[in-house]
Amino acid sequence: MADVMLLDFWASPFGQRCRIALAEKGVAYEYSEQNLEQKSELLLRSNPVHKKIPVLLHGGRPVCESLIILTYIDEAWPEMMPLLPRDPYARAQARFWANYIDNKIVDCQTRLLTTKGEAQEQAKKDMIGALKTLDSELGDKDYFGGQAFGFVDVAFVTLTPWFYTYEKYGDFSVEEHCPRIVAWAARCRERESVAKALTDPEKVYEIVQEEYGAN
Amino acid sequence: MADVMLLDFWASPFGQRCRIALAEKGVAYEYSEQNLEQKSELLLRSNPVHKKIPVLLHGGRPVCESLIILTYIDEAWPEMMPLLPRDPYARAQARFWANYIDNKIVDCQTRLLTTKGEAQEQAKKDMIGALKTLDSELGDKDYFGGQAFGFVDVAFVTLTPWFYTYEKYGDFSVEEHCPRIVAWAARCRERESVAKALTDPEKVYEIVQEEYGAN
Repeated sequence: MADVMLLDFWASPFGQRCRIALAEKGVAYEYSEQNLEQKSELLLRSNPVHKKIPVLLHGGRPVCESLIILTYIDEAWPEMMPLLPRDPYARAQARFWANYIDNKIVDCQTRLLTTKGEAQEQAKKDMIGALKTLDSELGDKDYFGGQAFGFVDVAFVTLTPWFYTYEKYGDFSVEEHCPRIVAWAARCRERESVAKALTDPEKVYEIVQEEYGAN
Repeated sequence: MADVMLLDFWASPFGQRCRIALAEKGVAYEYSEQNLEQKSELLLRSNPVHKKIPVLLHGGRPVCESLIILTYIDEAWPEMMPLLPRDPYARAQARFWANYIDNKIVDCQTRLLTTKGEAQEQAKKDMIGALKTLDSELGDKDYFGGQAFGFVDVAFVTLTPWFYTYEKYGDFSVEEHCPRIVAWAARCRERESVAKALTDPEKVYEIVQEEYGAN
């Protein structure tokens, strides 16, 4: 087994976060694509509690959950490209927004894609509100942490290929409500680490339609 | 305004986490009890996104969400009583279990207290399973991190006064399923920081019955 190994699934925005962080840090690793329909013995043994990808194995020891993996990568390879800022207050802010993305955006996404009628209308409203909150937090900064690409950017950018699907299911334009987020996403995609990791938006839409039915 | 201020509500297990951490670190602070029925301008301004306690104000700057506050306290006052271990892998493990408590135990608790019949039966099963997972993670160690009281202990111990309520609503004995957790909780309560912060279990039961109706 390689010293660093990532158990992942190609289209997972959570796995993609880890790929971006490892690429930014210049960490060589073995990528192990997992079959989520028939989970491998290695995945079940590495993440017995949640049985989910991504899992980072470092020297054979598993780290689970994407934001915890990002933090681990930042602490285990601290020399290159810090993801979290050094100042405790700025670190707390970065963690706050990353959690917001994991809780609020992911919740709105699930409701938007799996409900119809009034519930979907509410999900759309909530999603636009949540995206606008992030747009306003970004403000006129280049990245969420300021001038450098970092923790919140990695956490959020892998959801941006899903915007096209949000727009199709919710019948709204992300750019109209959140022009700064759309410009920021394009800025992030100029990085090789990001461009390589992200799924094509039309492919996301295709997968989602297969999974949840057409919008 | 004091340099350090905690916006809190006396019975909140999430607020109690912050009180324990501040006490362990020996940080002097102003405690500000909040009226959750009529939220103060200070609370709404300090946590405009979630509008929830606890909020730690340090030099006037707000930090929100209890686990993020614990991490912030650990990083802002690093000299005294480290809450997170130094080793990156051990830190990742501590974060994993604290998240497990926040997601799994709190979800089971909500379902156990707010449902009836089959849904409540399922919640009870899930709660026992989740507590047993934590019991097995604790194993024969004194504390979750080993020999020293730390991050996961602070995160979990404030939920232990709720065990009595879980038992009443679920008709089961935590001690029967999780003897090591019960012994660990007693060990934690020997600390002044913990004893001072926790709510009386019968008081928790009383509040829960007022809020959700009798079991």
